[in-house]
Amino acid sequence: MSTPLKRVLVYGGSGALGNQLVNHFKNKNYWVVSVDMKENQAANANILVNSSQSLIEQEQNIEENVKQLLNEGAKLDAILNVAGGWAGGNASSAQFLSNSDLMWRQSVWSSLISASLASKHLKENGVMTLPGAAAPLDLAPTPGMIGYGMAKAAVHQLTKSLADEKGGLPTNTFVAALLPITLDTPMNRKWMPKADFSSWTPLEFVSELVEKWIEDPSQRPHNGSLVKMDTKNNETQISLH
Amino acid sequence: MSTPLKRVLVYGGSGALGNQLVNHFKNKNYWVVSVDMKENQAANANILVNSSQSLIEQEQNIEENVKQLLNEGAKLDAILNVAGGWAGGNASSAQFLSNSDLMWRQSVWSSLISASLASKHLKENGVMTLPGAAAPLDLAPTPGMIGYGMAKAAVHQLTKSLADEKGGLPTNTFVAALLPITLDTPMNRKWMPKADFSSWTPLEFVSELVEKWIEDPSQRPHNGSLVKMDTKNNETQISLH
Repeated sequence: MSTPLKRVLVYGGSGALGNQLVNHFKNKNYWVVSVDMKENQAANANILVNSSQSLIEQEQNIEENVKQLLNEGAKLDAILNVAGGWAGGNASSAQFLSNSDLMWRQSVWSSLISASLASKHLKENGVMTLPGAAAPLDLAPTPGMIGYGMAKAAVHQLTKSLADEKGGLPTNTFVAALLPITLDTPMNRKWMPKADFSSWTPLEFVSELVEKWIEDPSQRPHNGSLVKMDTKNNETQISLH
Repeated sequence: MSTPLKRVLVYGGSGALGNQLVNHFKNKNYWVVSVDMKENQAANANILVNSSQSLIEQEQNIEENVKQLLNEGAKLDAILNVAGGWAGGNASSAQFLSNSDLMWRQSVWSSLISASLASKHLKENGVMTLPGAAAPLDLAPTPGMIGYGMAKAAVHQLTKSLADEKGGLPTNTFVAALLPITLDTPMNRKWMPKADFSSWTPLEFVSELVEKWIEDPSQRPHNGSLVKMDTKNNETQISLH
């Protein structure tokens, strides 16, 4: 009898970090489903998000697809949400409202849907990660990217609430938000070609960290951790908030 | 020559606290405009919000009306946003997503629109208040009201960002979030008839506090304050976060 494969859902599976996670866990013989606006061909299955739909419509679509993909009674070992982009602007910017709305849809809608999926399809002792950010920690002002800071502050608050035993997730779900400062992605290299790449966090660091949490519960930090990743001279340290 | 009247916009002017603010400032001979889904007949002017519109549509409607109401060159002395309700639920609640969405629209959309209005129509040295909440301070979990906690955490982050000199508001705008624990409103008395009303914050306390900030800048706490109001034996203390 072979051990059943672990099953992971990667929300944002076509982005740089999402793609890294899909590939990493495929290489470990996990069954991986990607949720994103476009397909990731490396995944075992894809669920496509229609970004013009409402929050409720998106959730219904994804929920129905997850239900069909999982065999009867099958559960996910982890839901890893790495969706979300970046847009700037302060209160006097022409794009202030539309960028704030976009940040909300990308980071928060995906996190709310991930939480709802976790309440139904995650195993006990499973892992859920959410897309936080270091910038708004401890209510540090984020005036040049107001909507981004608000969305990430909301994700941090969600992380703390879901980690609470009354948050509505299966028993002993481990919930953490990942707070990179800058990830070493092709897009970031393209837009900031003169930056010091040795201070950017490698995508492999993140996928290995998450794998450790899935495989070995004793490696998990306290539930609800906001896990800041700080890279200097190609060495990444994490700090918990 | 008479001193020109001060001009105040109350967002949520038909709610219990909004109505208190409208009446308080009318009694002080301010010119008061209420923004809400229904009219407040005590206000000098009303702008009606259509809650089925998008964020951008709502802002355009309100912005056009504010522009028409203010005489050429006239500015507001204060924008007081006290909009926002309450809805509960954790990740496994049937209403989890719809309630989270509602909380966002009520507290955060109104706050984003208030910030946009402030960037255009607030005087220098003006006052802007936003609807915070004590519950999610310091990332305390809010598992029984996840969407509410997220929306309020986002409003707190917005408050800090707007108070920054790069936040996009006019010079020396004072921004604060009001964080009541429980306000002494008719609805709260109706739904919690057996509660200890001596631990609820009277609406008059809030209107007098805000008036002080408008009239006397030396009375303002540090910019970006989250002003928690704690009432015991009918005495209210504020603490700044």
